[in-house]
Amino acid sequence: MSIRIFVTGGTFDKEYNELTGSLAFEDTHLPEMLRLGRCRVDVSVRTLMMIDSLEMTDADRALIVEQCRQAPESRILITHGTDTMVETAAALAAALAPESRQTIVLTGAMIPYAFGSSDGLFNLGSALSFVQALAPGVYIAMNGRCFEWNRVRKNPETGVFEAI
Amino acid sequence: MSIRIFVTGGTFDKEYNELTGSLAFEDTHLPEMLRLGRCRVDVSVRTLMMIDSLEMTDADRALIVEQCRQAPESRILITHGTDTMVETAAALAAALAPESRQTIVLTGAMIPYAFGSSDGLFNLGSALSFVQALAPGVYIAMNGRCFEWNRVRKNPETGVFEAI
Amino acid sequence: MSIRIFVTGGTFDKEYNELTGSLAFEDTHLPEMLRLGRCRVDVSVRTLMMIDSLEMTDADRALIVEQCRQAPESRILITHGTDTMVETAAALAAALAPESRQTIVLTGAMIPYAFGSSDGLFNLGSALSFVQALAPGVYIAMNGRCFEWNRVRKNPETGVFEAI
Amino acid sequence: MSIRIFVTGGTFDKEYNELTGSLAFEDTHLPEMLRLGRCRVDVSVRTLMMIDSLEMTDADRALIVEQCRQAPESRILITHGTDTMVETAAALAAALAPESRQTIVLTGAMIPYAFGSSDGLFNLGSALSFVQALAPGVYIAMNGRCFEWNRVRKNPETGVFEAI
Repeated sequence: MSIRIFVTGGTFDKEYNELTGSLAFEDTHLPEMLRLGRCRVDVSVRTLMMIDSLEMTDADRALIVEQCRQAPESRILITHGTDTMVETAAALAAALAPESRQTIVLTGAMIPYAFGSSDGLFNLGSALSFVQALAPGVYIAMNGRCFEWNRVRKNPETGVFEAI
Repeated sequence: MSIRIFVTGGTFDKEYNELTGSLAFEDTHLPEMLRLGRCRVDVSVRTLMMIDSLEMTDADRALIVEQCRQAPESRILITHGTDTMVETAAALAAALAPESRQTIVLTGAMIPYAFGSSDGLFNLGSALSFVQALAPGVYIAMNGRCFEWNRVRKNPETGVFEAI
Repeated sequence: MSIRIFVTGGTFDKEYNELTGSLAFEDTHLPEMLRLGRCRVDVSVRTLMMIDSLEMTDADRALIVEQCRQAPESRILITHGTDTMVETAAALAAALAPESRQTIVLTGAMIPYAFGSSDGLFNLGSALSFVQALAPGVYIAMNGRCFEWNRVRKNPETGVFEAI
Repeated sequence: MSIRIFVTGGTFDKEYNELTGSLAFEDTHLPEMLRLGRCRVDVSVRTLMMIDSLEMTDADRALIVEQCRQAPESRILITHGTDTMVETAAALAAALAPESRQTIVLTGAMIPYAFGSSDGLFNLGSALSFVQALAPGVYIAMNGRCFEWNRVRKNPETGVFEAI
């Protein structure tokens, strides 16, 4: 089974820029995280963009949708900022044909991977497993849980993804 | 959905003892790992033993089987040393009634969690997801993959779990 | 020998706030760092402020000077943001009486301690050692080196402290 | 100022071998640690041996002494297992000519650097600073403190270096 991973940025991949003292994006940490997890699943990683999900435009979402549509893989994992992850999931669900045989799982992190205390590796292991095991559809995997795209929201006060 | 986690030791939980300069077991790191992963799944953790799986006896395996049988949860995750994980999975499969409605996933780590470079958090996220998504049966989840208990072996040369 | 540690904030103590996705100050990590270093030196830690050194005012500097003057210890370590560390060192040198018997060492970090890849622990071990070994005066300890307060600048392009 | 670093192994450099599940030596972590500490001191690192200090023989100690004697640098840092660090310090002190102009500092770690919770980076920063600041002689730097070679012992119960 081959899995496509699309990287879009988000907290997952934020870095500390030591010259400016602020957070910024450089390269994705996905390959390093897969190595650390000793991942033996056949994956191919492609970076689509490297942005904070609050800055994601409709055009960005259209690009993600198009890339999923064109992907030969039936199982796709998308790393994404948590703030608008639900919106992108909805855009994917709206655009995919009802007869689509693709399982798409979006995931992210609350703490950048570059920090020692990140939840990213746990979420990556989780999302990679759900995408292998679940039926076609669009899902969000966070905190060890997996939600259908239209049954979840990010609680703005607690930052936690919860069922609706 | 409530998940039972049984801890049996293994590399997952090995610690460096600074007085003796050797590896040893103290308390399990599972609760800390679940916190780091910001896990929001309803789990209850119970330590059954804290041993290297090379030292696991038939009596130890009988105990694990019995605890699974008595668990009210239909989804069970077992952390286990990798060297004899396949044997314990076989013992579980042999003992569980054919009509059992339990999904049991065994997982472990190649590097202790206490080391910065551990694969443990990735494997925990993975196993916790497979145990939620898979049909009843006994499985081994390692390196992002999940195997049925009788279709896997640990390659003694490479240390990697592979399909047979 | 007893050493006073004054905490003023800086990159050392920056944290990632997962609700806002930005960097912020909470409590100092100094006690945790001393524990990790298994430090056996007799120190007493006091937080004077928790700010980015670009926001440090003359009043803030006057407070630091006054606290050093009043400290009974003859050896003082100050954690400080790197951007204006040299200015604070100059303020201290100007204010201390020529006959002062105090050795004061300022140090900081380029990467927050909360990040896995921080230089903070190395710099703390270094500064704590220089403050024990050096004659009275005001110094800056960064990157394993120690400079007299009036013979150093932070190179704005490279972020490195260098002799002038 | 140029500093020579001799690596002899010890807990500093112990690794977890995932095939055997035991601790072993591979390459030294010193260069990586110096990079992490953003060390800007001019150092040259040379590995003399890679052993547990309990296995250090008289011949090994003679080699260390000889290498120090031949080193053109007047400041030398030695990484060493903690169990027999005091013995090697004594051997160095006995062998160096009274008129030697060398400052030699031995240091080590209680927890391997490869573990997330190592005291190694703190000790390295400390030893590298003491070796720059102290007068000629042989010293042991551990836990932020520095001892003359003949005024220290490792307490076998607590594992802590203490003055005698």
